[in-house]
Amino acid sequence: MSQDDLDFSSDTSAPAHPAVLDALARANHAMAASYGSDPLTAELQSLICEIFETDVAIFPVVSGTASNALALSLLANPMESILCHDEAHIARDERGAPEFFSAGAKLSLLAGSDGKIAPETLETACSTINRAFVHETPPAALSLTNLTECGTAYTQDEIRTLCEIAKRHDLATHLDGARLANALAHTGASLADMTWRAGIDVLSLGLTKTGAMSCEIICLFGECRDRLDELRARAKRAGHMPPKMRFISAQGLALLSDGLWLELAGNANDVAQALAGKLVASGEAQIQYPVEGNEVFARLSDDLLGKLQGKGLKAYPWPGGATRFVCNWSLRAATFDRIKL
Amino acid sequence: MSQDDLDFSSDTSAPAHPAVLDALARANHAMAASYGSDPLTAELQSLICEIFETDVAIFPVVSGTASNALALSLLANPMESILCHDEAHIARDERGAPEFFSAGAKLSLLAGSDGKIAPETLETACSTINRAFVHETPPAALSLTNLTECGTAYTQDEIRTLCEIAKRHDLATHLDGARLANALAHTGASLADMTWRAGIDVLSLGLTKTGAMSCEIICLFGECRDRLDELRARAKRAGHMPPKMRFISAQGLALLSDGLWLELAGNANDVAQALAGKLVASGEAQIQYPVEGNEVFARLSDDLLGKLQGKGLKAYPWPGGATRFVCNWSLRAATFDRIKL
Amino acid sequence: MSQDDLDFSSDTSAPAHPAVLDALARANHAMAASYGSDPLTAELQSLICEIFETDVAIFPVVSGTASNALALSLLANPMESILCHDEAHIARDERGAPEFFSAGAKLSLLAGSDGKIAPETLETACSTINRAFVHETPPAALSLTNLTECGTAYTQDEIRTLCEIAKRHDLATHLDGARLANALAHTGASLADMTWRAGIDVLSLGLTKTGAMSCEIICLFGECRDRLDELRARAKRAGHMPPKMRFISAQGLALLSDGLWLELAGNANDVAQALAGKLVASGEAQIQYPVEGNEVFARLSDDLLGKLQGKGLKAYPWPGGATRFVCNWSLRAATFDRIKL
Amino acid sequence: MSQDDLDFSSDTSAPAHPAVLDALARANHAMAASYGSDPLTAELQSLICEIFETDVAIFPVVSGTASNALALSLLANPMESILCHDEAHIARDERGAPEFFSAGAKLSLLAGSDGKIAPETLETACSTINRAFVHETPPAALSLTNLTECGTAYTQDEIRTLCEIAKRHDLATHLDGARLANALAHTGASLADMTWRAGIDVLSLGLTKTGAMSCEIICLFGECRDRLDELRARAKRAGHMPPKMRFISAQGLALLSDGLWLELAGNANDVAQALAGKLVASGEAQIQYPVEGNEVFARLSDDLLGKLQGKGLKAYPWPGGATRFVCNWSLRAATFDRIKL
Repeated sequence: MSQDDLDFSSDTSAPAHPAVLDALARANHAMAASYGSDPLTAELQSLICEIFETDVAIFPVVSGTASNALALSLLANPMESILCHDEAHIARDERGAPEFFSAGAKLSLLAGSDGKIAPETLETACSTINRAFVHETPPAALSLTNLTECGTAYTQDEIRTLCEIAKRHDLATHLDGARLANALAHTGASLADMTWRAGIDVLSLGLTKTGAMSCEIICLFGECRDRLDELRARAKRAGHMPPKMRFISAQGLALLSDGLWLELAGNANDVAQALAGKLVASGEAQIQYPVEGNEVFARLSDDLLGKLQGKGLKAYPWPGGATRFVCNWSLRAATFDRIKL
Repeated sequence: MSQDDLDFSSDTSAPAHPAVLDALARANHAMAASYGSDPLTAELQSLICEIFETDVAIFPVVSGTASNALALSLLANPMESILCHDEAHIARDERGAPEFFSAGAKLSLLAGSDGKIAPETLETACSTINRAFVHETPPAALSLTNLTECGTAYTQDEIRTLCEIAKRHDLATHLDGARLANALAHTGASLADMTWRAGIDVLSLGLTKTGAMSCEIICLFGECRDRLDELRARAKRAGHMPPKMRFISAQGLALLSDGLWLELAGNANDVAQALAGKLVASGEAQIQYPVEGNEVFARLSDDLLGKLQGKGLKAYPWPGGATRFVCNWSLRAATFDRIKL
Repeated sequence: MSQDDLDFSSDTSAPAHPAVLDALARANHAMAASYGSDPLTAELQSLICEIFETDVAIFPVVSGTASNALALSLLANPMESILCHDEAHIARDERGAPEFFSAGAKLSLLAGSDGKIAPETLETACSTINRAFVHETPPAALSLTNLTECGTAYTQDEIRTLCEIAKRHDLATHLDGARLANALAHTGASLADMTWRAGIDVLSLGLTKTGAMSCEIICLFGECRDRLDELRARAKRAGHMPPKMRFISAQGLALLSDGLWLELAGNANDVAQALAGKLVASGEAQIQYPVEGNEVFARLSDDLLGKLQGKGLKAYPWPGGATRFVCNWSLRAATFDRIKL
Repeated sequence: MSQDDLDFSSDTSAPAHPAVLDALARANHAMAASYGSDPLTAELQSLICEIFETDVAIFPVVSGTASNALALSLLANPMESILCHDEAHIARDERGAPEFFSAGAKLSLLAGSDGKIAPETLETACSTINRAFVHETPPAALSLTNLTECGTAYTQDEIRTLCEIAKRHDLATHLDGARLANALAHTGASLADMTWRAGIDVLSLGLTKTGAMSCEIICLFGECRDRLDELRARAKRAGHMPPKMRFISAQGLALLSDGLWLELAGNANDVAQALAGKLVASGEAQIQYPVEGNEVFARLSDDLLGKLQGKGLKAYPWPGGATRFVCNWSLRAATFDRIKL
C-alpha cells in the first residue's frame, strides 16, 4: 500500500494519466500555428462533434473556473443574474469569477437537498421574474452542476426537466461539468442526452479532475455556436488563450478518444463505492449523500477518523461535520480489501 | 533542410524544449497539493530567489497576457492609468486585458523610436501629473517591455534611468519580459541588474517564447512581495490558478536551472544575427531596427520575398511594409549557410 | 381631502419641501466654483460636522443608489464581499449597483426577522471567515439599513452591538440611511449616537425621501475621512460629480438646518402611526411589522382594500400578501380623522 | 460692472436661467410617479420628438459624464474600442468614465487640428480594422463632440461625412453635445440636420452649460430606440435614476421650449465674438482657434493678462500657453464696450 492509497484530499491533487503525457510528447514536434489554429485543436473539435453526436463549437482552457466564468459571461450581461444552487462551485469556490467575467452579474442562490435544485424551487424562482421592473436584477441563465457539489448525479431526465422550466422563462442554460464523466459513468446516460438533448446551451466540460494535466473544454451548442468569436475575444482578454494551445487540445484528445475518460471516471466511482461500503461496514460512519460519483461525504466516529488518520488518511473536513473523500482515477477499489477498519 | 527551417512566424509556434517535456514526465507521479502548494512550486520559488540574488514572491501562470494584466492590476486602480509605449503588447495585442483585470484603468501611450521610451518623453509625460485634479486620470505605473516590440533591447542603464524618473513621480514599475532572456543574452546583463536593481517592482518573466510549453512567472520584488496574497486572490477569480500547478512550475524549473533558458535565447539571437546578415548580404533587404534579440524586421525586395516564400518562408508582414522574422530556440544559425539568396 | 391624501405609493413620489425650493432660488445667483468647490458645499460640510458632533468628510450625490454603491466601493474590493440583510435595498432594488461600483464584489445575504440582522446571525457568518482560503470570497464590510426595509428601526444599542461584532472580525461598517431621519425621530437617538459613536464608518445619509428634491450625502467618519479623494475620483468617473453641485448642497442645508429634516420625518412617522391605528381599529387589517417609522405593512381584508381603493388609495402590494403604505412629509395625521373605514 | 463680468472660468460655474427655477417651482406640487414615469418626463419626450422632427427615445441624467458614458456603454462592449479625438472630453476629462460604464472598452485616440477629426484620419483608422484578429481591440463606435474641445463647430456636412465613413465600417456613432446649442446657434443648422439626419445614432444633449441647473438628455435615434430598456437598466445600476426625475425633466422643458436654449447659446456666442474682437483689437492677443461658439482660446501678452487679472479676470490657462475664456448665458456682449484694454 502506497502513501497515496488513502489520499482522498482531491482529484485535483492526482497526477495526469500516462496517456496524457504520451499525447503531450507526441504533440511536441515541429512548428504549429498558435492560439488554437493548430491541427490538434481542429482534431479535438471533430472528436467532440462525434462524441456529442452534433455540431459543437469548442474552446479549451486550463481551469474549471475559467471555463465556468467564460461560459457564463456569454449568458448573462452585467445587469442580469444567474440562478444556481447555493452550494455551487461558481458561488462558493471561485472567488467571484462569474462576477468578474460578467462585469458584475449577480448569482441568485437556490436551496436544495443533496446539492440538487428541485423543479418546484426553480419554478418558484422564475415565477417572480419581472424584466420590466428596472430596480430588480432579473435572471438570464440557469447554471447546473453534474456531479453536484454533494457528489450526487442529476439524471438526464432531471436535467431536462430543469432546462424545460428555464426555457419556458427565457433563461439560457449552463452545465458545470467539472466531474461530468463521473455522472455519465454513474447514470449510463450518453453525453448528448445529458447535455444538449436535455436542453443545455453551454457546457463546461471538465477533464482535469478526470485525469488531464490541465484541460477544460467550453462547448457551445445550437445557436450558442454563433458566440464562438465573442468567446474567443473574451478568452483572449482574460489571458485564457495561451499561445501553444496544441498542448491543451492534445490532452483532450488523449482522454476523450476511445472513452478513456469514462473508463477513468468509472474506476474512480467504483473506488468511491468500495470506500463507502467499507465505511458503512465499520458501523462507525454515516453516509451523508447518495454516493453517485467519485465522492463520499461521511460522518465518522472519532475512533474511526483517528484510526484512518493513523494509516495516512488525507481528506478534508466538510462544513456540517462530515469528512469529504474524493477518489481519483489512480486509486484502485481492490486496495480496500487490504485495509482493516 | 526541414520545412520548419524557414518558419519565422512566431516563437510561440515552436514546440517546447525536450527538457520541459522530461520535467513534466518527472513531475507526473504521486499526489501533490493543488493550487501552488506543491513542492515543485516551492522549489521554483527558491530557484528564482537564487537567480535573482534576492527574495522574490512568485506566481506562475499560463499566458503572457495573464502575467502582464495580473501584474498591472496590482499597480493601478480603476481610476488611474498606466504609461507604456504605444506599440506595447499590453496596448496592441492583448484585447484590453489590462483594462479588464484593472477594472477599467487606462493605458496612456508614449511614442518612441525603435520600440523604446526615451527618458525625455517619460519626463514630459510625468511633468503634467496632477493627482489633485479629479477630472484627469493620473498615471500610477510605468510598464516597459524588454525585448521591445521592435526586437531591440533596453540596456540595464536605460531601464534604470526610466525607473528613476518613474519613482521620482511616484509611479510603480512593471517589466513585460516575454522575451527577457533574449535581452539578457544580448546585453550580458544579470537578471538582477536588469530588473529589481534597476528599479523594477514587478516583472512578468516569460518562458513560453523561450522554450516552455506554457509558463510565465509573475515576480514581485521588495515591498511588492506583500501583495502576493492579493495577487493570488486576483489570479483565482480570473481562473488563473489551475489546480495542478506543479506542471507549470516544473517547466520553469527545467528552463531556469543551469541557465538553459539563456542558452536557448542566445541561440535564437544567433539565428537572428545570421539571418539578418544573410538578408543584408543579399543586397535586397533593409533592416528596420537594430537586431538585438531573436527578431528581425526587414523590408525585402519583392524578388527576395518571392524567392524566400518559394523556399517555404513563413513570416508575417508588419505594419509599415516590413516583414517580421521571429527566430525560435529550435532553429540553428548554421542552416543559413545552406540557403542561397 | 385632496387626491394625494391617500397616496402612500412612496415617499419618493412626494414633492420637495418649500424650504428646499427657497434654498435653490437663493443659491441661484452669481458664479460659483464647480464640482463641489463652492461656498454652499463648504457650508454644508460645516453644518454636518456640527450636527454629528465630530469631524466628517462629505460628498453629496443625487440618488440613494449612488450614495450606497459609492460608499460600499470604498469598503470592499472586487475580491471581497459585503454582508447585508437579504431584503436590503442594496441587494434587491439597486440593479446590481454595489457589484458595478465595486467591480464585482459579492453581497452575502443574511436572513432576519423584521428586516433586522440578529447579532447571533452576524456572529455565525463571521465565524467562518477564512481570509487565507483563496477560493472563497471573504466579507470585508457589513452594511446595515435604518429604517430597515420592513419599516422597523434599529436602536443605537442594536447598531452598536452589530458594529462591535463586525469590528472584532475586521469588517468595515456602512449604514444605508435612506430613511435615517425616521429612525432618529422614532428612537430619539442623536445622530452621533446612531452612527459613528455606534461604530459606523461610512453613512449614506438620505434626504430625498425626507423632503429634498435630490440630495443624499455620503459621510465618512474617523479614518475613513482619508478616503475622500478616492471617493471623489470614484464619483467623478461614475458621473456623480455634476458641475453645479451648489444646488445639491443647498438642499442639504435647507433640511439639516434647525432640525427641519427631523421635524418632517417626525410628522411622517406620526402619519404612519395614525394610519396604523386606523387600520387596526377597522378590525380588518393585520400589521406585519412594528411601525417604527413612516411605513406601514398591513395585510388587509379584501373589503377594506376595496373600500380604500374606492377612496383613491395608492399603495403597492408587497411580496407575501401585505400592502405597503409609505407616509411622506406632506401628509397630515389629522387627515385620518376625516376618513371613515 | 459686476465681479462676474470677467468670470470666464467655465459655463458650468454660472447659475441656472430664471426660467429653470420657475419650472422647478411649478413642478413642485402634488405627488408624481417616481423614476421617470411622471407627466413632465412624458411631456419632455414629446417636446424632444417635436424639435428633432422624428421619434426619439430619451433618458435624462444629471451630468454630462453620465450622459456620455451611458450612451457609449450601449455602443461598445468590453472587448471593443471607441474612436474619438485625442482631446475629447470623454478621453481627457471624465476620469475613465467610458471605461467604467463599458466595463473596460478602450478609447482609440485620433489626432486632428482645431479639435476636429479629419475625414482622412478617420478613414485611415478604419482601414486597418480587422474584427477577425482576436488580439487587437476593434473599434465599434465613433464619438464626436460639437462644439469641439477647441470651441470650434463641426458643420452638419462635416458630421455627415464622418458618420458616412463610420457607417461604411460598421461603427455606431455618438455625439457629445455638451455645447450643442452653441454649435447650432453658430452654424444655423437644425437640430435634426446636425444629429440623426447626419447619421448620429445616440446624442448626449447637454443643457447644463447652456443654462440648466443639472439636465443632460440621452437621445436614442432610429434602431437605437430599442435600447431604451437596456439604457434604463444601466442607468439604474449606475445610480443615475434619481427618484424625483420630474425635476430634471422640468429643466429640459424650460430650456427647450420656444427655443430658449438656442437664444441663450446665441447670446453666449455673441459674448465670445465680442470678447475675441476686443482681445484682437488690443494687439496683444492671438486667437488660437476659430471662435465658433462660446469659447475663446487666446494667447495673451503678459501685459494684457496682467491688466485683465487686475480687473478681476477669471479664466484658466490652457495646455500650450493659451488662456481659455468660456462665456456663459448670463454675460452680455455690451459689457465689453465699457472695458478698456
